[in-house]
Amino acid sequence: MAEAKYDVLAIGNAIFDIFAQTDEKFLADHGMAKGSMALIDEPRAAAIYRDMGPATQVSGGSAANTIVGIANLGARAAYVGKVKDDQIGKLYSHDIRAAGVAFETAAAKDGPATGCSYILVTPDGERTMNTYLGAAQDLTPSDIDAAQVAASHLLYLEGYLWDPKNAKEAFVKAATIAHDAGRQVALTLSDSFCVDRYRDEFIDLMRKGTVDLIFANESELHSLYQTSDFDAALKQLRDDTRLGVVTRSEKGCVVVSKLETVAVPASPIEKLVDTTGAGDLFAAGFLFGMVRNAGHYNSGRLGALAAAEVIQHIGARPQVSLKELARQNGLPV
Amino acid sequence: MAEAKYDVLAIGNAIFDIFAQTDEKFLADHGMAKGSMALIDEPRAAAIYRDMGPATQVSGGSAANTIVGIANLGARAAYVGKVKDDQIGKLYSHDIRAAGVAFETAAAKDGPATGCSYILVTPDGERTMNTYLGAAQDLTPSDIDAAQVAASHLLYLEGYLWDPKNAKEAFVKAATIAHDAGRQVALTLSDSFCVDRYRDEFIDLMRKGTVDLIFANESELHSLYQTSDFDAALKQLRDDTRLGVVTRSEKGCVVVSKLETVAVPASPIEKLVDTTGAGDLFAAGFLFGMVRNAGHYNSGRLGALAAAEVIQHIGARPQVSLKELARQNGLPV
Repeated sequence: MAEAKYDVLAIGNAIFDIFAQTDEKFLADHGMAKGSMALIDEPRAAAIYRDMGPATQVSGGSAANTIVGIANLGARAAYVGKVKDDQIGKLYSHDIRAAGVAFETAAAKDGPATGCSYILVTPDGERTMNTYLGAAQDLTPSDIDAAQVAASHLLYLEGYLWDPKNAKEAFVKAATIAHDAGRQVALTLSDSFCVDRYRDEFIDLMRKGTVDLIFANESELHSLYQTSDFDAALKQLRDDTRLGVVTRSEKGCVVVSKLETVAVPASPIEKLVDTTGAGDLFAAGFLFGMVRNAGHYNSGRLGALAAAEVIQHIGARPQVSLKELARQNGLPV
Repeated sequence: MAEAKYDVLAIGNAIFDIFAQTDEKFLADHGMAKGSMALIDEPRAAAIYRDMGPATQVSGGSAANTIVGIANLGARAAYVGKVKDDQIGKLYSHDIRAAGVAFETAAAKDGPATGCSYILVTPDGERTMNTYLGAAQDLTPSDIDAAQVAASHLLYLEGYLWDPKNAKEAFVKAATIAHDAGRQVALTLSDSFCVDRYRDEFIDLMRKGTVDLIFANESELHSLYQTSDFDAALKQLRDDTRLGVVTRSEKGCVVVSKLETVAVPASPIEKLVDTTGAGDLFAAGFLFGMVRNAGHYNSGRLGALAAAEVIQHIGARPQVSLKELARQNGLPV
């Protein structure tokens, strides 16, 4: 196995986030399921945006947020995702590159605009996402650079990739290349509604060994195994994958492998502002820990720390040096 | 005098803000004068942006920030400023309208893109702005709707309007219409380097009575009268204008008229994050107080409160209800 050029390569839907604060009534009036990610078309995007309050804009996309966190912690990181060659696509490309992530996916010249998620944040800090995929729909297997995948120690994929029509082929192509090169593949289940759409396929990916490591939050886990019994679902996850990491908000996380179960507490926060990116940054810290061979417990702590930073401000990208933060907390960097 | 349709009409350069955190070395390496607003051309904008870190995007523009604050406090507000009909222009137009501000200036179909300011925030919270005016250069007297100006109780103008080539004509046209309709005109001096560029013209505007109320911070005041003696400068300001309001950061503000001088303390903050918009939101609170006939002292307190909110997060637009905040602090709304 050749030495890796990148510690982690992430593939995901490149989405620009448009955040506005709102109240519960707005969600109800607009038929939104609080806490979820709903896919929307252009007319619905326009209707939601028209009614939304003044916004703050920050580049997003689940796997992109994760890879930015990994680069911020100090690992070598690359990203594959599709934007259009428009103003928002240029902002997006700037932000991910400026975070130290290699990003070479060709921007679309034609077709839909760069994807945007219209994110409503309620006073309790919960976020409800309405995502117009836009150019992310046009990610295809040809966007996967085999040499780059093979040269990456770890491949990280988001469940959301099951939504755009060609991206799942890109996903499977990349996973196959990675395994052929002796690399590991991680998947986040992304969202409980997403799990609901692709349950059988996700379980299949796990059981066939297309993915080695699964990230899920509690509601995704319950959706995956269609049970409200956490312990039963966790047992099932242990059977189905080599390594499972389940995040439980303020209850921390649980890491399950065939040999052990490790519980890690959440990191304390001063004030919850916006949960957007909590799972993404948790994955960033955890994967970084894996790259540094920090062990499951310390990887979980790194994940908890990165998640705690991102939920204390608007936007799913870190606003401080996570490396410095980890160091201050006595964690390996 | 007809009853006013709007409490305040603001005219300014419509600028989209792109914020990144940085260190002192970045400013030095790029020849930036810390704390200032520098005008930049397109190649310089591209060079600065290329070197900047990952960003957060929030609509800005000095007078626009002020008018958003005024609307947020509950007054009837309108804005005139020029964007292009591009993606960023659409984000900008959304944000100001969603804040409850009437905004009907026609977006430019051709010419330069919507203006952007590349704002570097150092660890001490100070902001250094590099502004590419873009479409804001194309604001002309024809963008001034005489009926709208005449129907606005107060006209608010930014000194930055002296930079684009036609905007000063728009400024003078609007001020003339306002006075002919028996309205009052306020001006912020904007920036000490801006004062340096247009010192004589600004003093002329004051002495000729084109403007009735002047907002300045200490460095702008010192630049205006080319003195480091604060008391001497303040005395001069009192002679030159009907009402002068000088902000002094953590020392609060001083309101001077022919009859009295009122000092108002700053509002306490927990943590200074980003000073961008401090002066703009101070002006919002103060003007709102004037509209509500709250008197100079309470107007100053409203200004201090609005400024304190905006400097505790990234971006120059309020993230909470200032009306609610004022109420909680026992101030008139």
